[in-house]
Amino acid sequence: MENPTTAGPQTSVATATNAATKAAATAAATTGQETTGAQLAALVERAVVAGEAWASTPPAVRAAALSAIADRLDAAAAELVPLAQSETHLLEGRLGGELKRTTFQLRLFAEMLQEGSFAGARIDHADPEWPMGARPDIRRVLEPLGPVVVFAASNFPFAFSVAGGDTCSALAAGCPVVLKVHSGHPQLSARVGALVAEALAAAGAPDGLLSLIYGTEAGRAALLDPRVKAGSFTGSIPGGRALFDLAVSRPEPIPFYGELGSVNPTFVTQSAAARRGGQIAAEFLASYTLGAGQFCTKPGILLVPAGSDILELLRSAEQPGPAPLLNERIQHGYVEVLQGLLEHDAVEALVLGEDAFAEPPAPTLIATNVQAVLADPEGLITECFGPTALVVTYSDESELLELARVLEGQLTATIQGEEDDAVAPELVRLLAQKAGRVLWNQWPTGVSVTYAQQHGGPYPATTTPGTTSVGTASISRFLRPVAYQGLPEALLPAALQESNPLAIPRRVDGTLAV
Amino acid sequence: MENPTTAGPQTSVATATNAATKAAATAAATTGQETTGAQLAALVERAVVAGEAWASTPPAVRAAALSAIADRLDAAAAELVPLAQSETHLLEGRLGGELKRTTFQLRLFAEMLQEGSFAGARIDHADPEWPMGARPDIRRVLEPLGPVVVFAASNFPFAFSVAGGDTCSALAAGCPVVLKVHSGHPQLSARVGALVAEALAAAGAPDGLLSLIYGTEAGRAALLDPRVKAGSFTGSIPGGRALFDLAVSRPEPIPFYGELGSVNPTFVTQSAAARRGGQIAAEFLASYTLGAGQFCTKPGILLVPAGSDILELLRSAEQPGPAPLLNERIQHGYVEVLQGLLEHDAVEALVLGEDAFAEPPAPTLIATNVQAVLADPEGLITECFGPTALVVTYSDESELLELARVLEGQLTATIQGEEDDAVAPELVRLLAQKAGRVLWNQWPTGVSVTYAQQHGGPYPATTTPGTTSVGTASISRFLRPVAYQGLPEALLPAALQESNPLAIPRRVDGTLAV
Repeated sequence: MENPTTAGPQTSVATATNAATKAAATAAATTGQETTGAQLAALVERAVVAGEAWASTPPAVRAAALSAIADRLDAAAAELVPLAQSETHLLEGRLGGELKRTTFQLRLFAEMLQEGSFAGARIDHADPEWPMGARPDIRRVLEPLGPVVVFAASNFPFAFSVAGGDTCSALAAGCPVVLKVHSGHPQLSARVGALVAEALAAAGAPDGLLSLIYGTEAGRAALLDPRVKAGSFTGSIPGGRALFDLAVSRPEPIPFYGELGSVNPTFVTQSAAARRGGQIAAEFLASYTLGAGQFCTKPGILLVPAGSDILELLRSAEQPGPAPLLNERIQHGYVEVLQGLLEHDAVEALVLGEDAFAEPPAPTLIATNVQAVLADPEGLITECFGPTALVVTYSDESELLELARVLEGQLTATIQGEEDDAVAPELVRLLAQKAGRVLWNQWPTGVSVTYAQQHGGPYPATTTPGTTSVGTASISRFLRPVAYQGLPEALLPAALQESNPLAIPRRVDGTLAV
Repeated sequence: MENPTTAGPQTSVATATNAATKAAATAAATTGQETTGAQLAALVERAVVAGEAWASTPPAVRAAALSAIADRLDAAAAELVPLAQSETHLLEGRLGGELKRTTFQLRLFAEMLQEGSFAGARIDHADPEWPMGARPDIRRVLEPLGPVVVFAASNFPFAFSVAGGDTCSALAAGCPVVLKVHSGHPQLSARVGALVAEALAAAGAPDGLLSLIYGTEAGRAALLDPRVKAGSFTGSIPGGRALFDLAVSRPEPIPFYGELGSVNPTFVTQSAAARRGGQIAAEFLASYTLGAGQFCTKPGILLVPAGSDILELLRSAEQPGPAPLLNERIQHGYVEVLQGLLEHDAVEALVLGEDAFAEPPAPTLIATNVQAVLADPEGLITECFGPTALVVTYSDESELLELARVLEGQLTATIQGEEDDAVAPELVRLLAQKAGRVLWNQWPTGVSVTYAQQHGGPYPATTTPGTTSVGTASISRFLRPVAYQGLPEALLPAALQESNPLAIPRRVDGTLAV
């Protein structure tokens, strides 16, 4: 859509496209049917072979392939969005936006590949005067890890699924992908998988670079396959932790990038509540109910001053109507966690309609006070995936700092404040220790795909606090450094050759050369 | 030594220095005595408090502290080297060089902190035209992970111990360090710990930034302490794996950077053997016996063409005399592994003197052929820590590729070749998949501290293939990204403020600004 002129090649390679589609259909399990052990073994072997070729492909070729996927998906939007809608109950507008985000992400990664900093190339020329002793010629670059198993998420059928962020960053890094389809949208997954295969074939990528597998057992088996070198996942804490435990229990443990759970606390200072209470209440209401509350960045806890009119505004505001959740399992889990919270002695209902536990459920707000949360953080600070949030009142702003100190890792933490709030500097400092992203007077539910985005955080927000699953930095999850010492120019990877044939930024003898 | 003029401040802060030394002596266990649970709890609490202050310290201040440590250690070289010698049996020249390397490393990290790229600062200004939808202002920077437990190594009493690479990179990153002393050099560790504490106090660093703990149980308990946020280790595969398993089994799993084992295979091509056999034999002999073979980068396997005169040269060469190993445990393990290899049906002795299993042991060479290794890679490709290596003959260079394919992860892999060797490009490509560093016509036992150095590799070389434990990139192990969205200038970390007060390179709206 951004660059319609690149759509041309699609038609000129119809034969390759058809062959690829056929091959994918033969090797993969039938949509929805569980992938067998034999099928999985064959798919991983294909991934290994494809990965060997793909890893040696110049970044510009990988970039063209990513753009080709984006073009193919955009061209099929009129087909894909209704298919996604039928499987996920999400709204058409939301899904259209998600698809746009997904294809934008592919194109942004294509740009990043061509810019070249992602390779982290460093060249140290030999230096007989190096103070610790003569230095040999050493050159370092990031290279692909190898085959990656990606576990698709239920709540973003485009952006965190077959052609989503993990697949995009793994392919960009030069890794083949074995994608475990989420059972919530198998038909959409199969269709996107076929379109990706067509686009990859048309772009000359090796066959078998992306394979779809179906079923929990196939996912586990893939993660344990010794040929697989990394896993990535977006989903629940129990599900993600179980897979993490598998990945690290292997004879060869592998990196497992799990984005798990977060309550995304929002701290409203006294002055912000006094000056902008109405705006804060309205924006919070829109944010916690967005997508029926099924965002990992949903603001699940809102801290407001006791006596603030925000409480009354929330109680009396018109809430959005009931909206169906993604699937039965999520509906069931939502009701269970919400009921558990309501049974807590310190919790009372703020907005609790007849339909709170119905299917679909109406948005619900519950309330407590900060001392109760400090007394039982495990019981009260818990993710409830769906249209609910916990409003927590406090008396003194020092309690905001106390709460920040007891938090577990979070994807986001938000402050609604005024710049001269005395509590702000210390609150920012504490929240930065707990969250991957700290927001000021904004809401966490939008996660823009940018160069500086950070979608991660300490456990249980993720299993790897040093990484992000959104934004261009996410490519680094699937790369590992290799140093070459004393190699002749002809045997060096292009990124490290003295003549810099890829024209990329490099650190040469310690100095950035752009 | 590099910069003697910076040594001045030491004398002017004698009071602070003495106070710090006293505090360290009070809080830490007596040298050699196991640290109790209560002592550990107090030390970790001190580390947490120190870390809060240290994390907010400007990079220039951290740089000055690292340089101060370097100066203090260099000034004490005449005391430290003999102390190290008495505890490790390593040679004076080797230990002097190792201390020089250690202090150089501290100063190189000080320079890196001031240059500022390590912070990975990225700024995306708000952009209403961002193609996926209006982009908020997002700014990302790397911040310290928190308290780190460092497990010191036996074989580098300076460079991988109290003031070694892990401590240096953790302190540089802004993290406090709880250092588990290696039982092989407790007196040296205590003395270096005291000097570091003095230097840190003189530089104005918070008290308790580096604590020493003693005993296996204290090390395990430290790794399991919920306030600890990362671990790092250099040592054996079983020891490192046990600690890795602990770190990932915690309720909050934490990153564990273990540098474990490697056989560092060296591949001699036919033309190289024919043209430079004498040189290769002599250099290999020097490399595998360096430090009595107690380097993690010792070339433990040498592949040579069958019939090459390298075999005869090695057999008839004068080997270095017996040299004492680091400690009883290593002596015992060495003899056990070497005896096991000699009992293998396919292994024969190449150089096996009377003193091969004595204490101290004489250097030993054993031999087999590549088909035997391919038939039993697990039995024959095994690290034997001490003065021995396995010489493997091959008939056809395609066997070099076969062997490269069955290798597990390695710290290094070396080719002794000629530039026009037909096997070279594919061998380089395969070895880069298996090793952290690929060498050409050099030897792996020197690991220079540089910007491009990579001391790591896939498991079991390390537990984290994406990281290095040597070189400036090692700092990234102890950092995690945090994004700030929409924050007012005054609340942003200095690295992200619009005015760039630290004058560091940053990526602004996707473009590197140096």
